[in-house]
Amino acid sequence: MRPFGFEMPAGECQTDPYDSHIERRLSSLSGQFFNQGEYENLLRNGDPVVYEVRSMERPEQEGELSFGLSIVHPGRVGDEYYMTKGHFHQVRETAEIYHCLRGIGALLMESGDGDWALEEFRPGRVVYVVPGWAHRSINLSEQEDLVTFFVYPSHAGHDYATIESRGFRKLVLHEAGGYKLADNPRWSRAGAECHV
Amino acid sequence: MRPFGFEMPAGECQTDPYDSHIERRLSSLSGQFFNQGEYENLLRNGDPVVYEVRSMERPEQEGELSFGLSIVHPGRVGDEYYMTKGHFHQVRETAEIYHCLRGIGALLMESGDGDWALEEFRPGRVVYVVPGWAHRSINLSEQEDLVTFFVYPSHAGHDYATIESRGFRKLVLHEAGGYKLADNPRWSRAGAECHV
Repeated sequence: MRPFGFEMPAGECQTDPYDSHIERRLSSLSGQFFNQGEYENLLRNGDPVVYEVRSMERPEQEGELSFGLSIVHPGRVGDEYYMTKGHFHQVRETAEIYHCLRGIGALLMESGDGDWALEEFRPGRVVYVVPGWAHRSINLSEQEDLVTFFVYPSHAGHDYATIESRGFRKLVLHEAGGYKLADNPRWSRAGAECHV
Repeated sequence: MRPFGFEMPAGECQTDPYDSHIERRLSSLSGQFFNQGEYENLLRNGDPVVYEVRSMERPEQEGELSFGLSIVHPGRVGDEYYMTKGHFHQVRETAEIYHCLRGIGALLMESGDGDWALEEFRPGRVVYVVPGWAHRSINLSEQEDLVTFFVYPSHAGHDYATIESRGFRKLVLHEAGGYKLADNPRWSRAGAECHV
């Protein structure tokens, strides 16, 4: 295995030379958006791509780094912005770095016991997800993609199930001139603690 | 320890909010440049800053990621471009990622047994240093800083001594209209093999 270099096209986002390209459509985010009625309405009119991940796969072993681009498209389900599924790492004690290349957004984070944090994304801004925190990217723009470059230890693995079942504690909702945070009524501390 | 975000100022490179700022002056690169006479000449006229590293220090443990900016200033010692010291990781089986934000340059890499690779840096270009390869950043511009964002596993550690004693196998030298690679006459395979 030799070193390699490649272009990271923040602007155009063509696939090459990434060796993995995942498209997540609205239907794959079942149960994640608060306004379930609006979610079903939107699905009846099609199944838009909410976000894409273009990544360079590395061996899933300690010392390797996995990296790529996350592209969250603009849109909303009711008042709730388009977002990624969000996940913990399977190996909890692993960090992740996000570097915003384009767009306006936020990274919503949550620890195993329900502490939470929100960090904004603007071009040039870096967010460090300390080990043990789940993370979800949210596009706060009405028009523009949110593009971030991510790096995480390749042995981290992904745990989507915990967030699928309990959600995040906070919702990030549109309001005139900005966004607001609201409590997620479906979230429960009990649901959190059983995953600590 | 909670997640955090901050600006990564590729343009201005002010220190905040990095918690470590290293300046490497020409005198700290003793023995690294091929043209020793010219090196000593330059030192007699001052001791310029060749490169800077602004980084966010993390606990040196598995699962954490260390990251920051490397800024190599433009300049030459004879025909040889300004460059970083270059290093292996103490824990050999750890990778590193470089993402070029500004400038024109290259990452010169070398494995323990003397295989070598050169990858160019241009804004938007990413270079993946697979585990086990030493790496040195080189500024190929006559006027502009080379600015790269780096990420590596925090437990990797730095081994500068191996490169200080054996150098890199290849030299990257200026020539009209570009650059050329030359063999480093001071490098020896024996010197390499004893560090495998």
